[in-house]
Amino acid sequence: MKVLITGGAGFLGQRLARELLARGSLKDAQGAPQALTELVLLDVVQANDFGDSRVRTEVGDIAERSVLERAIDGQTAAIFHLAAIVSGQAEADFDLGMRINLDASRLLLDVCRQRGHRPRVLFTSSVAVYGGELPEVVKNDTALNPQSSYGAQKAIAELLLNDYSRRGFVDGRVLRLPTISVRPGKPNAAASSFASGIIREPLNGEEAVCPVNGSTRLWLLSPRKAIECLIAGLELDAAALANQRVLNLPGISVSVDEMVAALREVAGDEVVKRIVWQADPRVEKIVGSWPGRWDTSRAEQLGLRGDQSFADVIRGYIADEGISLR
Amino acid sequence: MKVLITGGAGFLGQRLARELLARGSLKDAQGAPQALTELVLLDVVQANDFGDSRVRTEVGDIAERSVLERAIDGQTAAIFHLAAIVSGQAEADFDLGMRINLDASRLLLDVCRQRGHRPRVLFTSSVAVYGGELPEVVKNDTALNPQSSYGAQKAIAELLLNDYSRRGFVDGRVLRLPTISVRPGKPNAAASSFASGIIREPLNGEEAVCPVNGSTRLWLLSPRKAIECLIAGLELDAAALANQRVLNLPGISVSVDEMVAALREVAGDEVVKRIVWQADPRVEKIVGSWPGRWDTSRAEQLGLRGDQSFADVIRGYIADEGISLR
Repeated sequence: MKVLITGGAGFLGQRLARELLARGSLKDAQGAPQALTELVLLDVVQANDFGDSRVRTEVGDIAERSVLERAIDGQTAAIFHLAAIVSGQAEADFDLGMRINLDASRLLLDVCRQRGHRPRVLFTSSVAVYGGELPEVVKNDTALNPQSSYGAQKAIAELLLNDYSRRGFVDGRVLRLPTISVRPGKPNAAASSFASGIIREPLNGEEAVCPVNGSTRLWLLSPRKAIECLIAGLELDAAALANQRVLNLPGISVSVDEMVAALREVAGDEVVKRIVWQADPRVEKIVGSWPGRWDTSRAEQLGLRGDQSFADVIRGYIADEGISLR
Repeated sequence: MKVLITGGAGFLGQRLARELLARGSLKDAQGAPQALTELVLLDVVQANDFGDSRVRTEVGDIAERSVLERAIDGQTAAIFHLAAIVSGQAEADFDLGMRINLDASRLLLDVCRQRGHRPRVLFTSSVAVYGGELPEVVKNDTALNPQSSYGAQKAIAELLLNDYSRRGFVDGRVLRLPTISVRPGKPNAAASSFASGIIREPLNGEEAVCPVNGSTRLWLLSPRKAIECLIAGLELDAAALANQRVLNLPGISVSVDEMVAALREVAGDEVVKRIVWQADPRVEKIVGSWPGRWDTSRAEQLGLRGDQSFADVIRGYIADEGISLR
């Protein structure tokens, strides 16, 4: 089976690639496992190919049709579309966000349509599609009201994927991801970047700024569980999705104070003292518009699972990254 | 004040133009009445200019930037964007629907952004943005789940207008219109065309096919009230709309059987006998996915009003068109 990951050089793209290569197979649309024969990693920068002969890396701008035509052919059976401009950057550069989060997503669907073989396509979406006055628990039938350009672009991509699926151009599914925490690596331009930073940097002996109030409620998913959900989401039976291709993934609802308490529980007081509290109204406005919890019954009925506790998430991060606590 | 109507040669565009010319003024963004100095009617065909020197007609494809740049300048204070590919046609010709309902709407917003003066822009949307499993009464916070490409394209245009408004590029508002009935003229390619045809044709002494079951519930608004709502919607204070620029317009919820009973009440048995019942699964599928009623409290709080009864709507149509009942 031939598989494409866009954003294949990114953090989730690389984790997903490593997991797919380790598993060595993916279920086809009929539910039968098929050996992974080619994994294309497309990104605007060169992706790591893990020295694996099944990997082909492609470098290019996914908002250009020729780049997508090179990456997708009539044998591409599954596409994980992870490439995106993150929330903070899409707010700062409107045209860039529209170009990558909207135009490239549509172009990808159009190239699939042109190929004509109805590949499975998985889009990732976000808590940011919600906003405005929200119920305490967001339901599957709660209206979207994004309060950021990133959220609007993701909501539009969801609508496109739903319609392209309904028309039979692709077999699509969208997973709305909670905020992913703890991400390894460096801070990025996502408004939610601090949700990893306030755990990761203190564990590395560095200071981290927390730009929101401790009572701010977040909806979180660990990278480990996110990767499991991406694969399970792509393998879902299309019939079970019917006319609603969008799924809210399970998460854990924690306040920033509770995140800090979990860090204290796992790593001690000295580590927690490295968090510097310094409000940033720009970040507070975007993050504060997101839901702190949503109803995940549909995803759970379909077998998708989140984390147990945020302390466990921190322990998983420490284990994955080989961090030694002094 | 300079005003633009796209779809200015269409049925609603022409009715709106006539009403604006008769009123002679429109409130500005501060709520002060301003004389209508220029009314641009843009359409793909030549619009009637009513022999009024305030009217300028423009013929062109609104999916082309140069056409919109000719129609919108830094003095264009209000834009009614009515041009659209109707539901049945957008389902039959996917690319045409995407080009007009999505690309042209985005281009219009982009030309406004480029002009930089934040004009008021009104989009019309539709019951077709809803679909799937719906509550009996659709609420303002009910999720969209369009089951037609037309509905998906309208939902996307709503998201774009909301985000362009939030960013201050335009001062936008979207009115979700019930199905408009009774429309004068000829049948069109809208899946809902019959909702006017089964009244209009029998009143004209002609047969009309009803392609759906009598129990099918529709959500209707008369052309008279639609025009009143379009003008009131454009004149709404932006502050009252806040971060949610989309309004579900009031309608009346009637079954097709109740529509026929109202026709019998107004025009008698002989007229009703001209309705031919002949199911069309293609039409039933699209129309059956639309809501039969929605909560209109927000629109009503803002002063927007619908009709009293469908019999009154038929009487209004007979009066407007000068039809004599034998």
